[in-house]
Amino acid sequence: MGASPRRVNLSIETTSRVQVVDITARVEEAVRELGIEEGTVHVFCPHTTGAVAVNEAADPDVATDIGRALSAMVPDLRFAHAEGNAPAHLLATLVGPSELLPVLGGRLGLGTWQGVFFCEFDGPRSRTVWVMGSP
Amino acid sequence: MGASPRRVNLSIETTSRVQVVDITARVEEAVRELGIEEGTVHVFCPHTTGAVAVNEAADPDVATDIGRALSAMVPDLRFAHAEGNAPAHLLATLVGPSELLPVLGGRLGLGTWQGVFFCEFDGPRSRTVWVMGSP
Amino acid sequence: MGASPRRVNLSIETTSRVQVVDITARVEEAVRELGIEEGTVHVFCPHTTGAVAVNEAADPDVATDIGRALSAMVPDLRFAHAEGNAPAHLLATLVGPSELLPVLGGRLGLGTWQGVFFCEFDGPRSRTVWVMGSP
Repeated sequence: MGASPRRVNLSIETTSRVQVVDITARVEEAVRELGIEEGTVHVFCPHTTGAVAVNEAADPDVATDIGRALSAMVPDLRFAHAEGNAPAHLLATLVGPSELLPVLGGRLGLGTWQGVFFCEFDGPRSRTVWVMGSP
Repeated sequence: MGASPRRVNLSIETTSRVQVVDITARVEEAVRELGIEEGTVHVFCPHTTGAVAVNEAADPDVATDIGRALSAMVPDLRFAHAEGNAPAHLLATLVGPSELLPVLGGRLGLGTWQGVFFCEFDGPRSRTVWVMGSP
Repeated sequence: MGASPRRVNLSIETTSRVQVVDITARVEEAVRELGIEEGTVHVFCPHTTGAVAVNEAADPDVATDIGRALSAMVPDLRFAHAEGNAPAHLLATLVGPSELLPVLGGRLGLGTWQGVFFCEFDGPRSRTVWVMGSP
């Protein structure tokens, strides 16, 4: 049996401009691949218009609401950034690039209703999220 | 003497809809119980309408202002989530479920004015916050 | 040769009220000083009107846009905090006090376009940001 990897890359395709994607099952699978038994797993988005969040995974409407509400919070300014996606950079900064999550008994140790989400604010895109254990 | 626990659970009762509660002293006590001398402590909220934040603990008005301001930032949308607490999920996502805090010499290593706060956005509730050391 | 330090302090001077400062090169240098080869580095702001963010570092307009947009998001309320900087505490809470960043082969392991930023919301100030390795 080989050594556990240090990082598992999740490939994620989004289909709309703003999308909040439930990746809980895939992070769970990555925790197994990484061989983490107790401790933490670090879920990190290496893209500047994407983010990682934790929120309710039971009702998919919550993710949809959060995406719509975040978009509605962007102030109506004349942005300097010439690519036209300054709002996406703003929202990625607010939600943040990573989450550090508990692992208990080889499984994600979240609250009953919590899931892990990848947020894209400038899609559609092909993106990667990194899942890493402790060194 | 027994081994140190791996996690200390803090029970927190909130009394209003939105409440930002200073839990600094209780996290400090948990750091002692966990026996962390140098490194980090991970303060994690397992609830989807709650969050963990770091901000000024000297003037309690700051926590009150932050709770009011966050509530005022929620956009006026027709949310799909049927439970009526979509704004709480939004604010929990923005503030985030956890903070990773330095520990120095067996004590929380924060800045002079910093404290740790549990934020509830859909109270009143009986909640738990997890305080965990490194494995 | 001496032991690696456990923490490197970055001194940062800001010149305006709200400023988003690219500190990527300085965090990279701190990773070398700390002697971290594989794992994570923890960038922590001990000030209650400051924050640490990750976003696009290629076009400096992005940082400027983010600072302006965050300021524009502050709701028009009568704040209780008597120092007059409640908006700064709010924005620091939203962006968050720290980021946990991957280190690969002795270098910051960020995405192609990502950089690390110190955000000041109540400047001009002389500030310190802590860069810490794993214990």
